[in-house]
Amino acid sequence: MDISGEEVTHGTDRGPRRALDREPLGYLTAALRGVGQVDLQPRLLTGAFILAGLWAAGWRVGLFATLGTLLSTAAAYAFGVDRDSIAQGLQGFSGCLTGIALVGSLGHHPATYVLTVVGCVLCTVLTAALGTLLAPYGLSALTAPFCVVSGVIVLGAPSFARIWHGDPAPVADPTGGDPAITFTDLWHAFFGNVSQVFLVDSWYVGLIMLAGLACAGARVVLAAALGSVAGIVAAWALGAPTAQIASGIYGYNAVLVGIALGAVLLPATPWNAGYALFGAALSTGLTAAITSFFKPFDGHTFTWPFILTTWALLAAVPRLPRLRAAGATG
Amino acid sequence: MDISGEEVTHGTDRGPRRALDREPLGYLTAALRGVGQVDLQPRLLTGAFILAGLWAAGWRVGLFATLGTLLSTAAAYAFGVDRDSIAQGLQGFSGCLTGIALVGSLGHHPATYVLTVVGCVLCTVLTAALGTLLAPYGLSALTAPFCVVSGVIVLGAPSFARIWHGDPAPVADPTGGDPAITFTDLWHAFFGNVSQVFLVDSWYVGLIMLAGLACAGARVVLAAALGSVAGIVAAWALGAPTAQIASGIYGYNAVLVGIALGAVLLPATPWNAGYALFGAALSTGLTAAITSFFKPFDGHTFTWPFILTTWALLAAVPRLPRLRAAGATG
Amino acid sequence: MDISGEEVTHGTDRGPRRALDREPLGYLTAALRGVGQVDLQPRLLTGAFILAGLWAAGWRVGLFATLGTLLSTAAAYAFGVDRDSIAQGLQGFSGCLTGIALVGSLGHHPATYVLTVVGCVLCTVLTAALGTLLAPYGLSALTAPFCVVSGVIVLGAPSFARIWHGDPAPVADPTGGDPAITFTDLWHAFFGNVSQVFLVDSWYVGLIMLAGLACAGARVVLAAALGSVAGIVAAWALGAPTAQIASGIYGYNAVLVGIALGAVLLPATPWNAGYALFGAALSTGLTAAITSFFKPFDGHTFTWPFILTTWALLAAVPRLPRLRAAGATG
Repeated sequence: MDISGEEVTHGTDRGPRRALDREPLGYLTAALRGVGQVDLQPRLLTGAFILAGLWAAGWRVGLFATLGTLLSTAAAYAFGVDRDSIAQGLQGFSGCLTGIALVGSLGHHPATYVLTVVGCVLCTVLTAALGTLLAPYGLSALTAPFCVVSGVIVLGAPSFARIWHGDPAPVADPTGGDPAITFTDLWHAFFGNVSQVFLVDSWYVGLIMLAGLACAGARVVLAAALGSVAGIVAAWALGAPTAQIASGIYGYNAVLVGIALGAVLLPATPWNAGYALFGAALSTGLTAAITSFFKPFDGHTFTWPFILTTWALLAAVPRLPRLRAAGATG
Repeated sequence: MDISGEEVTHGTDRGPRRALDREPLGYLTAALRGVGQVDLQPRLLTGAFILAGLWAAGWRVGLFATLGTLLSTAAAYAFGVDRDSIAQGLQGFSGCLTGIALVGSLGHHPATYVLTVVGCVLCTVLTAALGTLLAPYGLSALTAPFCVVSGVIVLGAPSFARIWHGDPAPVADPTGGDPAITFTDLWHAFFGNVSQVFLVDSWYVGLIMLAGLACAGARVVLAAALGSVAGIVAAWALGAPTAQIASGIYGYNAVLVGIALGAVLLPATPWNAGYALFGAALSTGLTAAITSFFKPFDGHTFTWPFILTTWALLAAVPRLPRLRAAGATG
Repeated sequence: MDISGEEVTHGTDRGPRRALDREPLGYLTAALRGVGQVDLQPRLLTGAFILAGLWAAGWRVGLFATLGTLLSTAAAYAFGVDRDSIAQGLQGFSGCLTGIALVGSLGHHPATYVLTVVGCVLCTVLTAALGTLLAPYGLSALTAPFCVVSGVIVLGAPSFARIWHGDPAPVADPTGGDPAITFTDLWHAFFGNVSQVFLVDSWYVGLIMLAGLACAGARVVLAAALGSVAGIVAAWALGAPTAQIASGIYGYNAVLVGIALGAVLLPATPWNAGYALFGAALSTGLTAAITSFFKPFDGHTFTWPFILTTWALLAAVPRLPRLRAAGATG
């Protein structure tokens, strides 16, 4: 079916907890699942752990993540989006990331609240638009609505006197530095990769989130952990600067690719596991290329390396019989 | 039907005036409708008003707009394009804008005439190519052939000694300046937004064109006017520089979005009217982002904000049941 | 049929030589055909001439072209790609160009070998992915997997200490210089256009390759030669710098467009011949635009002008009845 196509390609959670789906509780559980769907996980407990991690990262991050998820989920109600898709949290996750990105890039000002409202409504519209455009290929939008909306706002903001309040904290530049690495760098990187998915650089936030992923099942947390390791190994092998590896800049896309290809979108076979690790390493290399591409116009890398890697590798599956696709893409 | 798919998504005019469709008069009426189709209007009178406005803006603008429309319509005849599509002016409007853009960017030289011929033939080819690529999604090419052809020529021109005669007039930079605004700025902006669709900065040309749109019906001129107002309000609210608002740089995309979503491509409902105004405001913000993106390689914004906004919002409609799509996209 | 769709849009060679298709000889003939498929030709003799030309251009070029073709063909075996597609060489040609591009951009280091392995596996994956994405439009991937893989690697490489060993030879800049031209320039350009398809600037390598194309038939070599002439004429008429014309920078895309549209993908009619020459000239102008677009982030033009021109012109054919498409695109 066309409209609910996205659910098949994200994880779904259809337990006997339908009581939670009655309003207004249904709205709140949909939003909580939305926080977890950033990592492609609809489990409520996963969403709760991740939300706790975001508030632990600071009240601004927690507040705007919460607001963003609530706003884009509410917009989906208003536009009459398929209820099943809302209930699984698929209308909230781009808003979650957009809220975090906007408060991080524009600062905590009244204008940022207004832009978060507009941006989150737009996330819901773009989720629908990309759903239409990608449906013929059996692909889902992933976090692309977030990347487009936040990218456009952050790119346009400096032109506007009322929303721009001077330069934000400089974006980490993954294109130079010292490649020597210590054990502290390594375990900071391992957890930082998980928290950087949410634009947060903090090993303990990553640890809390990893605990949330563990609630979603052994395969999910294993895929996330191996993705993180693959990202670190690839970045080290390529000779990336240690500071960027340690802060998770080079590995958060690998974590997402690991979860998406290793635990959600493809069935569990040895070939597919290797393919997921290959993708995780690829996304690490792609991070440098995309950052260099965005540099002349001050664009933001966000989760583009994850999105492009996952789209390319999934689109290839139907023509690579060794890799068995899940129902949605097969 | 595949080949005539574009007509459904532009306005059509099927009066009892079939006498006008006999050659050679058919060629001339097709071209005149083509001028109006820049604003998505096939009415002959609308085309006549707009053409008068273009000649009032200066003989070069008028001449190259006329030449461009005639050339790309003629190319459509030569390639054997569906006659109904030609008769509705759908093969001429990209050529109209391409002629204006080339004489404005490259100056009035013999080489500009040659490039206008090549560019207009290419517009017809790209109209067909984009028609094929967008058909599965029920979208039409809008002014994208113009943006691609003129963008490529203007980007490549400085590399070539025979077609480049020094820097053109600098493109208005919508990324800096003073945000205070007067009443004169406001009404200049209101009409300038309409004329800037054709790369002309002149309030009276905008007034003439708005009169032409009024000939196409109350809904069309209302949608254009409200789009223009939405663009001005959005630009002012964001804090855009007054000089750019007054010259229409920030609002011409809003006018086009207003007409496209508010009067042509979606049925008239309150939700759709709100959606069209939301889109008009969005295209204003997008103008700054696209201009910043294009700045490193001296690209031109042209009508990309209109095209991208309209494509995204239309592609979302099938998954947003609150918004009822017209037959073509439903 | 979906999976073997690409073959229809490249040339195929189905002689009574099935003995060559038994392993391990089948692997080697598939790879040799792959070298020829860069020019869209599956004939073994064509591949042999071109490979000889590549080794004549230098052992590094010859070695990495050979390695690249063998590696991506082997990856296709491993992924279980359709055997017919492998046998026609369609899985090897992007790897061939990727090998040449990587040793040219990164230098001859151990890391370059590792990246060539990864890049060639990725070429096979992207060939499958683009096959899926382009199938609805009847288009094939052409050399796009090479352009994407090599573009990403070369763009990301300077960020990584272990794979970057200082600046490579500067890329020829086709955006400035003297437009006067001599007869020596002209015939150097004519053959250089053919060798630059493989990133080699050498008239005698071009001559060897042209001999290989002659083995593929009179129509193929004529289309390549006329494409080369069209590229030179267009570059001269536009006023491109002579040094770039003479080294083939402005014409290699025209050669490929000439072969693709003039001899392989469209049936032989006078209109189609004119359309192919129009495309060849277009790709020359597009070369300057794409190079200017890529300059801010040090991207590489590679064969993008050929790919984009061919895709656009082929996608237009179904709506331009004057041009009769081949079975695959009709």
